[in-house]
Amino acid sequence: MENQVRAGITIDYTGMMSSSQNPQGFEKEELLELQNVLDQAQVTLKTRRAAGEIDFSMLLTSVKTELVEIIEYANAVAPKFENFVVLGIGGSALGPLAVHQALNHYYYNDLSPEKRGHRPRFYVLDNIDPVRFNELLQMLDPLKTLFNVISKSGNTSETMAQFLIVRDTLRRVCGEHYAEHIVVTTDKEKGNLLPIALKEGFRRFVIPAGIGGRFSELTPVGLLAAAICGIDVEKLMDGALGMDQWIRETQGVFSNPAQLRAALAHLSWQKGKNISVFMPYADGLKTMADWYAQLWAESLGKRHDRHGRVVNVGQTPVKALGVTDQHSQVQLYAEGPDDKVITFVSVVKFKETVEIPIDIDLPEDIQFLGGRTLEELLAAEQKATEYALTLAGRQHQKIILPILDAYTVGQLLLLLEWETAYMGELLNINAFDQPGVEEGKNGTYALMGRKGYEARKQDIEEYGKIRYSLGKVITN
Amino acid sequence: MENQVRAGITIDYTGMMSSSQNPQGFEKEELLELQNVLDQAQVTLKTRRAAGEIDFSMLLTSVKTELVEIIEYANAVAPKFENFVVLGIGGSALGPLAVHQALNHYYYNDLSPEKRGHRPRFYVLDNIDPVRFNELLQMLDPLKTLFNVISKSGNTSETMAQFLIVRDTLRRVCGEHYAEHIVVTTDKEKGNLLPIALKEGFRRFVIPAGIGGRFSELTPVGLLAAAICGIDVEKLMDGALGMDQWIRETQGVFSNPAQLRAALAHLSWQKGKNISVFMPYADGLKTMADWYAQLWAESLGKRHDRHGRVVNVGQTPVKALGVTDQHSQVQLYAEGPDDKVITFVSVVKFKETVEIPIDIDLPEDIQFLGGRTLEELLAAEQKATEYALTLAGRQHQKIILPILDAYTVGQLLLLLEWETAYMGELLNINAFDQPGVEEGKNGTYALMGRKGYEARKQDIEEYGKIRYSLGKVITN
Repeated sequence: MENQVRAGITIDYTGMMSSSQNPQGFEKEELLELQNVLDQAQVTLKTRRAAGEIDFSMLLTSVKTELVEIIEYANAVAPKFENFVVLGIGGSALGPLAVHQALNHYYYNDLSPEKRGHRPRFYVLDNIDPVRFNELLQMLDPLKTLFNVISKSGNTSETMAQFLIVRDTLRRVCGEHYAEHIVVTTDKEKGNLLPIALKEGFRRFVIPAGIGGRFSELTPVGLLAAAICGIDVEKLMDGALGMDQWIRETQGVFSNPAQLRAALAHLSWQKGKNISVFMPYADGLKTMADWYAQLWAESLGKRHDRHGRVVNVGQTPVKALGVTDQHSQVQLYAEGPDDKVITFVSVVKFKETVEIPIDIDLPEDIQFLGGRTLEELLAAEQKATEYALTLAGRQHQKIILPILDAYTVGQLLLLLEWETAYMGELLNINAFDQPGVEEGKNGTYALMGRKGYEARKQDIEEYGKIRYSLGKVITN
Repeated sequence: MENQVRAGITIDYTGMMSSSQNPQGFEKEELLELQNVLDQAQVTLKTRRAAGEIDFSMLLTSVKTELVEIIEYANAVAPKFENFVVLGIGGSALGPLAVHQALNHYYYNDLSPEKRGHRPRFYVLDNIDPVRFNELLQMLDPLKTLFNVISKSGNTSETMAQFLIVRDTLRRVCGEHYAEHIVVTTDKEKGNLLPIALKEGFRRFVIPAGIGGRFSELTPVGLLAAAICGIDVEKLMDGALGMDQWIRETQGVFSNPAQLRAALAHLSWQKGKNISVFMPYADGLKTMADWYAQLWAESLGKRHDRHGRVVNVGQTPVKALGVTDQHSQVQLYAEGPDDKVITFVSVVKFKETVEIPIDIDLPEDIQFLGGRTLEELLAAEQKATEYALTLAGRQHQKIILPILDAYTVGQLLLLLEWETAYMGELLNINAFDQPGVEEGKNGTYALMGRKGYEARKQDIEEYGKIRYSLGKVITN
């Protein structure tokens, strides 16, 4: 049964439930008790979607029609450039990275141009560390490089700083043609990047108005990078649209996977589990764990509920990778506090098979490996880990992809986005804002001397003085 | 003061302490109350070290003398190979990766051979995903590749499977010279890998007997890879030896950085903070967060204390990266539950500087960036984030490296190892074993048909039957 390949994603939540091996698990009744709230959430989310507030779902159809333009541009530029560099941070970086790693060759940048289908190498500059920044820019020939600047507002300090430096280099090296090396993904009507793009003639793609970075992978933010690097973005969108429809139209916690995952998360949160581990058993999904960590943390980590009451909610997402992290984290998961739930993501059929050779001269202890495959070993390790965690009374569930391809990745993105939206409803918070990062942004503006932030600068400097009257330990 | 470059590491723990801005912080008296326990721990650890139980420290001197041999071998093989591939998992992978990323070019593998100093590209195969495995092996020319198989016992299923496949390929492609493409790092006297290495004539390096994978970076496990890829391993060891001596000889929680960090961690754990975030503000230290996550999780996540009582202790480590994760995790850190402590790691002086160009035609909102540097922006972002977290009443501390080089990385490794050892003492557990992964390992042996595990196989299969009578949701 487990090895049966299906078109869709399967959720196996057995490990969350009460059983003879794990009596501490949930009862089905506990999930059913949430059905009324989930039904109400479904209505609310439908209304909010119609009002243009659940953009990640509502925009799928219009984005699908935009694809022609994206693909056309991507196919035109891909053969012209050796390198494609995203300048972006947060969702503008994590989504493109996750989809690229899931669907392209693991060592894509190391391949010859032929093996990459004459598509450019792919880099994402998602930080402002001056060492890495210089190391990348010194390595790439600007004449052969296309930069994609992604910022909705053009207010993101990190991305705008990178853009200013890159534009300066391009102007010096490429002369009057520099604008051909920049493509901008930004708001249609507003922000600081738009007037520059219009004035200087950069090719533009639009980030739809309402959507937040962490929900923007299936907009030009993520689709442009994917198309340029040869990913089948139409199939990706088909998977997303299919899952979107399934979740919007399916009733009942035991049929609707987003409702189910949100209900399980909510029960675990209510029972004091403040940690949620996301642990794919496929190297291609390693970066998906980073994307999901942003989605879960930034959407659900909130001080206030919708009525303005202080609630300070939010499970902390933890990224792991099987089998690798069996050798680093599973000791804690099995023996540490019972404070976490684990989601395994597994792939039923890998697109490669690797046989372990038989050698009868080997020490007997490792003879058993001969004649088996790496994917059998991977599956056995996962099953053994599930079993061990069950014996230890630790709750876990599985998202099972029949294969890892553009269709199932599209499905997975929408499943995780929808379950986050549902969890926001169950927690009665707004999953689509991020008020808690404003303080840090404003503090940065203040310390960097932006006009209008003088008072805040003084506050932070006062804080600095207190700081250094307290504690430091210095070694030699 | 903050910008003063020092030879040593500084711990700034102000953000953990009570102040006018954060009254919930700790009082100095709370730390001082732990001094007796810490003094006792120092005596115990000294005794255990003398008895050969704190190998990561005790072995430093002997490893230092082994370096000549390691460097000689590394310099001999480096120019002969285009690729160097570590086959290892857990500590055998995370340590080499962390040190490589901290000290070599961020895009090392993308550099030309000249710019790499004619040293090989560096890959670590730390998983058994068949797709990635094949993608790597098909890309590399075996004739130009050196493989380093790392397993103390030769019992690690993942590494041994990889080894058997690679050896088979090498035999086919390189004929009688295949053994020159394999270097083995394993136990001196025992295990499954040793007899194969002896019989087939592989070059060998020794993993000292007692040491666990997560504490083995400064043994041939990590030093060989570092030396082959051009890292100054002597300077790395000097930093480690310096910090080791400092921590062993310095008395008092406010002078000994390992005691201080363990005491802060222990107080936070006692007060219900079950999450510990490690957030470097330097791209080079991103993988160090992975290494540290293993160290902290596997050492301290324990079911039993030393008296066999069930305690289920262990803070869950969370990896983050500044400034990148300000745009993904800080929303949760600032507004979510007060269930975590954060360690920032900052670098005072980067080895590169990048100026942001001035352009008076820009929209006024981003004018402030012009004329400043990326490292100023990075520092401002970190300070603003600290300030924002303080206002939100969230505890944080800083490990400050004057620069990021082999010396300070050596210091950092030892600081983190010693603080883990101290935390083990404060929790009264054994920080040096990992009994919780045995169940999963044995389950894997059982499912893969290893002799002697037949009964367990039946148990797991029974469990499988129960499993699928419970819950599944299938989409299309």
